[in-house]
Amino acid sequence: MLDFKLCDLLKMALLEDIGCGDVTSEALVGEDVLCEAVILAKQDLVLSGVTIIKSIFPCIGEEVGCKVFFRDGDWVSKGSVIARYVGKARTILKVERVLLNLLQRFCGIATYTRLMVEKLKGTDCRLLDTRKTTPLWRILEKEAVRHGGGSNHRFGLFDGVLIKDNHIAVVGSVRKAVELARSKVHNLLKVEVEVSSMDELEEALEAGADMVLLDNFGIDELKKAVSLCKGRVLCEASGGINLSNVREVAKVGVDFISSGAITHSAPAVDLSLKITGSEGG
Amino acid sequence: MLDFKLCDLLKMALLEDIGCGDVTSEALVGEDVLCEAVILAKQDLVLSGVTIIKSIFPCIGEEVGCKVFFRDGDWVSKGSVIARYVGKARTILKVERVLLNLLQRFCGIATYTRLMVEKLKGTDCRLLDTRKTTPLWRILEKEAVRHGGGSNHRFGLFDGVLIKDNHIAVVGSVRKAVELARSKVHNLLKVEVEVSSMDELEEALEAGADMVLLDNFGIDELKKAVSLCKGRVLCEASGGINLSNVREVAKVGVDFISSGAITHSAPAVDLSLKITGSEGG
Amino acid sequence: MLDFKLCDLLKMALLEDIGCGDVTSEALVGEDVLCEAVILAKQDLVLSGVTIIKSIFPCIGEEVGCKVFFRDGDWVSKGSVIARYVGKARTILKVERVLLNLLQRFCGIATYTRLMVEKLKGTDCRLLDTRKTTPLWRILEKEAVRHGGGSNHRFGLFDGVLIKDNHIAVVGSVRKAVELARSKVHNLLKVEVEVSSMDELEEALEAGADMVLLDNFGIDELKKAVSLCKGRVLCEASGGINLSNVREVAKVGVDFISSGAITHSAPAVDLSLKITGSEGG
Amino acid sequence: MLDFKLCDLLKMALLEDIGCGDVTSEALVGEDVLCEAVILAKQDLVLSGVTIIKSIFPCIGEEVGCKVFFRDGDWVSKGSVIARYVGKARTILKVERVLLNLLQRFCGIATYTRLMVEKLKGTDCRLLDTRKTTPLWRILEKEAVRHGGGSNHRFGLFDGVLIKDNHIAVVGSVRKAVELARSKVHNLLKVEVEVSSMDELEEALEAGADMVLLDNFGIDELKKAVSLCKGRVLCEASGGINLSNVREVAKVGVDFISSGAITHSAPAVDLSLKITGSEGG
Amino acid sequence: MLDFKLCDLLKMALLEDIGCGDVTSEALVGEDVLCEAVILAKQDLVLSGVTIIKSIFPCIGEEVGCKVFFRDGDWVSKGSVIARYVGKARTILKVERVLLNLLQRFCGIATYTRLMVEKLKGTDCRLLDTRKTTPLWRILEKEAVRHGGGSNHRFGLFDGVLIKDNHIAVVGSVRKAVELARSKVHNLLKVEVEVSSMDELEEALEAGADMVLLDNFGIDELKKAVSLCKGRVLCEASGGINLSNVREVAKVGVDFISSGAITHSAPAVDLSLKITGSEGG
Amino acid sequence: MLDFKLCDLLKMALLEDIGCGDVTSEALVGEDVLCEAVILAKQDLVLSGVTIIKSIFPCIGEEVGCKVFFRDGDWVSKGSVIARYVGKARTILKVERVLLNLLQRFCGIATYTRLMVEKLKGTDCRLLDTRKTTPLWRILEKEAVRHGGGSNHRFGLFDGVLIKDNHIAVVGSVRKAVELARSKVHNLLKVEVEVSSMDELEEALEAGADMVLLDNFGIDELKKAVSLCKGRVLCEASGGINLSNVREVAKVGVDFISSGAITHSAPAVDLSLKITGSEGG
Repeated sequence: MLDFKLCDLLKMALLEDIGCGDVTSEALVGEDVLCEAVILAKQDLVLSGVTIIKSIFPCIGEEVGCKVFFRDGDWVSKGSVIARYVGKARTILKVERVLLNLLQRFCGIATYTRLMVEKLKGTDCRLLDTRKTTPLWRILEKEAVRHGGGSNHRFGLFDGVLIKDNHIAVVGSVRKAVELARSKVHNLLKVEVEVSSMDELEEALEAGADMVLLDNFGIDELKKAVSLCKGRVLCEASGGINLSNVREVAKVGVDFISSGAITHSAPAVDLSLKITGSEGG
Repeated sequence: MLDFKLCDLLKMALLEDIGCGDVTSEALVGEDVLCEAVILAKQDLVLSGVTIIKSIFPCIGEEVGCKVFFRDGDWVSKGSVIARYVGKARTILKVERVLLNLLQRFCGIATYTRLMVEKLKGTDCRLLDTRKTTPLWRILEKEAVRHGGGSNHRFGLFDGVLIKDNHIAVVGSVRKAVELARSKVHNLLKVEVEVSSMDELEEALEAGADMVLLDNFGIDELKKAVSLCKGRVLCEASGGINLSNVREVAKVGVDFISSGAITHSAPAVDLSLKITGSEGG
Repeated sequence: MLDFKLCDLLKMALLEDIGCGDVTSEALVGEDVLCEAVILAKQDLVLSGVTIIKSIFPCIGEEVGCKVFFRDGDWVSKGSVIARYVGKARTILKVERVLLNLLQRFCGIATYTRLMVEKLKGTDCRLLDTRKTTPLWRILEKEAVRHGGGSNHRFGLFDGVLIKDNHIAVVGSVRKAVELARSKVHNLLKVEVEVSSMDELEEALEAGADMVLLDNFGIDELKKAVSLCKGRVLCEASGGINLSNVREVAKVGVDFISSGAITHSAPAVDLSLKITGSEGG
Repeated sequence: MLDFKLCDLLKMALLEDIGCGDVTSEALVGEDVLCEAVILAKQDLVLSGVTIIKSIFPCIGEEVGCKVFFRDGDWVSKGSVIARYVGKARTILKVERVLLNLLQRFCGIATYTRLMVEKLKGTDCRLLDTRKTTPLWRILEKEAVRHGGGSNHRFGLFDGVLIKDNHIAVVGSVRKAVELARSKVHNLLKVEVEVSSMDELEEALEAGADMVLLDNFGIDELKKAVSLCKGRVLCEASGGINLSNVREVAKVGVDFISSGAITHSAPAVDLSLKITGSEGG
Repeated sequence: MLDFKLCDLLKMALLEDIGCGDVTSEALVGEDVLCEAVILAKQDLVLSGVTIIKSIFPCIGEEVGCKVFFRDGDWVSKGSVIARYVGKARTILKVERVLLNLLQRFCGIATYTRLMVEKLKGTDCRLLDTRKTTPLWRILEKEAVRHGGGSNHRFGLFDGVLIKDNHIAVVGSVRKAVELARSKVHNLLKVEVEVSSMDELEEALEAGADMVLLDNFGIDELKKAVSLCKGRVLCEASGGINLSNVREVAKVGVDFISSGAITHSAPAVDLSLKITGSEGG
Repeated sequence: MLDFKLCDLLKMALLEDIGCGDVTSEALVGEDVLCEAVILAKQDLVLSGVTIIKSIFPCIGEEVGCKVFFRDGDWVSKGSVIARYVGKARTILKVERVLLNLLQRFCGIATYTRLMVEKLKGTDCRLLDTRKTTPLWRILEKEAVRHGGGSNHRFGLFDGVLIKDNHIAVVGSVRKAVELARSKVHNLLKVEVEVSSMDELEEALEAGADMVLLDNFGIDELKKAVSLCKGRVLCEASGGINLSNVREVAKVGVDFISSGAITHSAPAVDLSLKITGSEGG
C-alpha cells in the first residue's frame, strides 16, 4: 500500500476518535510526560499489521520509539509482547484505541484464514479472499489474508473480469457474456465466469472462459465439474464453505476455494496496550 | 450523521472498489440498459442501514428509484425483500458490492445486539457499545447498536471523560485522577473511572466520580460493588460478557453493561442483491 | 489540537493568500537569500499562538530556524521581540501575512479575555467562552481564551447538552425538554438549560437539569436565581455582560459568566514582522 | 466566489461545530418536525451575506425554504426580519450557530466600512481594504467591504505587486526594488511601492512605480507627497487611520486610504435566529 | 469514469484558472446577463469529450442549457457547431478556457489515433495506447483513444503484469521474471513480458508468458518473432512506430501495435467558443 | 510553486497510475532490493523539471538519493545522463512512469519554446505563453516556458484583465468594455483588450487600455497598428504564429508575441529511466 495513502486513512481514523481533543488525557497527563507501553497478545493469534504498528506515529508527525518483536504472519502466543513504544504518554493514549481497533481486525482475519488454510494442507487447493471486505480497509484486509496464508482474488471491479449471475441475467446467456467480455476487455485481463450448473459450465468452457467459479455446487456435482475443467481452465468453488467442510471440498480437486467469511466475519482478536512505566511532566 | 459526510465516505468506498472502472459490467451491459433489482435477506436479521440504501445512489448523483419495505430496527425474516431499485443496470452493478458490504456489517451489529438486549428483558440494565468500532464507520455502527436496542456510550475521546487503567498508571491513583479531571474538564462533561477492585471503587466514590466502570469483576464482587454504588453513582460492568452470562451480570443490578464484541465481532448477515428484470440497451 | 489537522488549516490559509505565487518576492528576492526576522509586539498584549509561530514553517516543509521568547499566556509589553526566525527570505515573506493575521486574532482574544478575567479577581466566578467563534478556527480561539485566563464551555454541538430558547419553543416546555434530554443523551454528558425567568428556572431544577444558563437576568433577579441554585446546580449568567458590568454580575455569586464578545469582537492586537538582516542570493 | 468552493468551506465549518452530531436537537426534536424561523437584526447594521443565507442549506443538500428581505449593502434597522426559513427544525437548529457566526462577522465588516466611507463623502478618496483578513474567509470579507461601500485592494500575493519595507530591506533601495519588479513581473500587473519618507517617494517616482503607498505620513508631509504624485501616479495613505481622522487624511487629496481595521477589528453585529412556529414530529 | 470523480477533477481545474475570481467578466458582465454560445470546430477533427461538454456546468452546480450535435468518435468537419449552450454569460465565460483546454487535447488524441488506425485497415492488427498519458487525465485520454478507434492497454500498474527491461535487469532473466510473476500475481491477471531479441522471446515463450511485447524489433526480426508466437501467445510491437511505418509493421502480423505518441504528442485541435447572442443584465 | 501543493499533485498522479499496487514490481522485486537508476536524454532537449526530479520521492516520504547534473533551462544533448537515483528498486519502478510523463511534457514545452525564442534574437519582441495549458499543471508548464526563454502572460482569470471578443460581444463595444474594466477592477491590475481591426485598436487607445492584443492581423495591418501603439501602449500579436513566421511578425515591432502552441502542442521529448545496477533482496 502506498505509505502516504495509508497515512491519510490513519489520520482520518484518528480524527474520528479524537475530534477536538482527548479530554481525559489532556486533563490528566502533562504534555511532557513520557511513558513506555507494550502491545500485548491476550490470546494466540497470527500477526497482521506490523506496518501500522510502525507507521501510525510517524504518519501523524509524532516521534515515538517503536520496536516490533514479530513479523506479519507469525504465530504469537497468548501473553506475548508484540511491540514496545517509548514516547509522550498523551500521544500514545490518544492513538491507542484506533491502533487496537485496526490490529484486532487484521490479526482476526489472519488468524481465521490460517485456520482455514491449515485444513488444506496436502491438497493443491488454495484459499482465496473475495471483495467482501470492510469498505476503505481492503488493501490491509487482503494483506491480512496473505499473512494468514491465503491468496488474493482480484482487488476490485477494475483488475479482473468476473461474470456473475446478475450479469448473465442481463446479457441472456453465459456464452454471450463470455464472448462479449473477451472482445471488449483489455488484453491483460482474464475472464472468469460464475456458473451454477453443469450446463452453464459446459457453455462457459465452450465460450472460452479463462476460469470458472462453481457456485454452491454439491460435492458430487463438484467432482463432475472438476473432471470437466482439469487441464482446460482453472476452477474455483464458493458458497457456504467453512472450517468443517473446506477440506472435503478441496479434496475434490478444485484449484481454488474462495471465502467471504475470512474477511467479513472473522472475530476480532484480543489485544491490549499497557503502559509499563512513565516519568516527567 | 451529516448527509454530506456520509456521502463523502460512500464515494471513497466506491472508488476503492471501482477504481478506474467496472470492467465486467462495462463490457457486458449497455450504457442504457435499465433493470429492477432487490435486496434480499438470506437469513433472519435486524435491519440497520436504511439511510445507506436510500442515499447511496443520490450521493453519487445517480437517479435510481428506490423503495424500502422495512425500517431500521425491524426484524426481517429470511427470504424477505428489503428494498427494490429501478435504474441503470451498470450503475446498480457497480454499487452492489459496497452497498452489501456495508449493510451486512450494520445489520450484523444490529442483529447481534438484539440477541444480547433480549437477554436483559425484565432488568433495568442497559447494553452499551464501546469505542471498539471499525475505524471510519463509527457513526453508522453506533446507529446499528441503537437499531438493535442497545444504547451508545460516549462517541469518542472528546465527548466524555473515561479514566482507564493506563491513565491511573500515569497519574498514580484513582483519587488523583478523578480530582484532576473534575478540575480541568469543561462543565458539561461527566467523569467516569474504570476500577478493578473494591478499594479502587471506594476511592473513586470518595473522589467524586460521576460514574464507575467495574472491569472484570466476578459476580460476587460485582454484588458488593453495586450495593456501594446504588443511589450514589451509575455503574457499568464490562469484561468478558457474552450471550451466555450477560443476564446473570445484569441481574446483579448494574446500570449498564458494555460490550466491544457487539461491534467488533458481530458476524456479517447474509444478504444479496438480485436483478429481477432488465430491458433496453 | 492534532498537529496534522492544524497543518492542513495553515496550508489552506497560505494557499488563499499566495495562490499561484508571491509575485513581488519572487521578482525581488533571490531564491537563496537568507534573512533574520523578528515578530514584534507593537502594543501590550497577552500572547497566544506559540504553536503556530513554531509550526507554520515545518507544516509546509520549510526549514526556518525559530526561537520564541515568551510562552502562551504571558503578558508581552510593547516593543518586545516575541520570536526570531532565520531562513530563506522568500519563504518568510510569503508566510508573513497569514502568520500575523492569525496571531493578531488569537492574541487579541487572549488579551481581551485577560481584561475580563481580571475583573473577576477575588470572586469564585469563572469566565466561559461560547460557540461564537470564527468558523474553522475554533480550537485555536478556545485555546486563546484559556491563555487569557478564561475557561472553555462545550466545544460544539456534540459534547454537551445545552437546551436553548429555540429548543423549548419546539418541545413546548423546559420540563419536557430536560426530561427528554436526560433520557436520550449518552451517560457522560450533562444537561444544561437556558432559562429566561424564575418560573423557567424552577421548572428546570425540578426536571433535573445539571446546570442552568440564566440569560439576560437583571441583577436583582439574578440574586434570587443564585440563591435557588446554590448547592443544587451550577449556574451560568450571560447576555450583555462587558468589562463595565462583569464584576457586578460575578459578585452576585453565579458560578460562570459566559461571553461571546471575547471571541467574536476582540480587537486584533498590533504586531509586525521585521526583517533585521539578510545575505546571499 | 465559486459556489462549490463556498460550499466546501461551509461544510467544513459545519463539521467543526456539529462533529458526530447535535446531541441536544437530536434528543429533543423529532426528525420530521418542521418549523419556521427568522433571522433578526438586533441592532442597526449594513447587510452582507445574502449568498450565505441562501446557499447554506442547498450546499449541504437540505431542502429548507428561504426568503431574504434585503440585499447586500442595505441598511437594516434594529428589529427587522432579514430572512425567513421554513424546513426541518433539526436541520435549522444544527446550522444556526455557524450561519450566525459568519453573518455577524460579514455584517460587522460592512457596517464598520460604511461608517468610514461616510466620512469620505464629498472627497475623491476611496477606502481600500488590505490583506489583514480572517484566514480562509477572505473572499467573503472583501465582498463585505464592497457591500459597505469600500473598494478592494489586491486579493493576495499573486495579483498585484506591492513592495514593502521588508522587501526594500532585502533589496537595498526603493529604486532597485521598483526596477526589478518592472522587469520580472508579468505584463498585466502594476507595481506599487510603500514609502516612508519624501526621499523614498521621489526615488519611487523616478524608478517608475505605478502607485505609491504613503505609510504613516503626518498630515503636512502627506500634503507635500500628494502634490508630488498628482498627475503622475496614484497614491494611497495608510497607518493609524480611523473614524476620527479619516476625513482629514482624505481631504489632503490622496486617491486611496487603506485600513486593516475594517476587516480585522470590526465588532460583530448582533443577530439572532428565532424559531417562530413548529409542527409535526 | 465515475461522474463524481470527473466532477472533482473539473472543479480543481476551474479553481486553477479562476482562483479568487474572473476579474474581467465580473467587471464587464452583469450577474444576470444571459447568452447563447457555441463550440466551433476550426479544423476537421474526431470528437472526444461529450461527457465533459455536458457535465462541466452541472458539476459546478450551474444551470446552463446544453445541446450537443455530434457523438464521441464522430468526424466533425471544419466550421461545424459541436454544441450550443444557453445560460449566464459570466458562468460560460468563466468556464470557457478550461473546457476548451480539455476538449482540444482529447479531440487531438482521438484525431491522431484515427489517422493511425486508418493505416491498419485490412490488417488484423489493433492499435493500443500506453501509460504515457497526461497525469491526472488518464481515464479521459484512454477514452479518447477508443473514440479514435484504438484499444486500451492496461490502465495502470495495478491491472496487468508487464515485465519490462528494468524488471529483468533486477531479476536477472526473462525466465525467472515470468515464473515469479506467474506464481505471485492474482489469478485474473495475464503476464506480458517485453523482449528485445529472439533469444529473450524464446525464453519468454518457454517460461509461459501470456503475451509478449516486441520492443524495437526490425521488420525482418519481427517476421521471425511473429511466426514463433502465432498460435501460442499474443504479440505486441512497439518502438518508433509512426504514421509512415505503422502499416508496414502491422502487415508483419503482430496482434497489437502500441504507441505512446498518440497520447503524449498528439497536437491539440483548434476549437473555439463563440458567444452568438446575449440579453438582460 | 508551493512545495506542498506540488506534492499533493504528485501524490494524486501516482495514485492514478499505481492504484492498489504495482503488481509487477511487487511480484518480481524484493522489498529490500536497492538499485541505481539514471534518467537519460534520448534526444537533444531543454531541461525543465528539476524540482520534480528532486522532490517526487521526498513528497511521498521515500528516501531515494538523487543527484541532478543539469539545471532547468540547460541544453542537454542526446545520450546525457540528466540525473541519478539510488534507492529501493520497487519505489523507483513504481514512480518511473509518472515522473517521465511529467518530465517529457515540461521538457517538451521548454524545448519548443526555445526554438521559437531563438527566432526572436536581435528583436525587442518577447514570447509570451497563454492560458492554453494542461489543466492542473499550469504552474509547471508556465515555468517550462520560462526555462525555454519565454515570458509568462497572466496566470489565470484572476491576475490580469484581458477583454476578448466574447466580452465585447456582450458589452457592445471596445470603448465601453475598457471603461467598465477601468472603473471596476482593483488598482494594481492593468487592462488589456483584444482587437481585430484598426478601428477597434483606435477605440481601445482612446478608451485608455494599458495594452492591446492584435489578433490575427496581417503583416501590413500589423505595421500600421504598431506605429499607432508605439510610445502609448504595449502591443501583443497572436494568431497562427509559428516557427516559420514568428520572426517576420517580431520584426514588425510588436512588444510581445503570444503562442498557445508552445504549451498545448509541444511534442513530448524522448526520455527514459534505466536501472544501472541492483543488489540485495
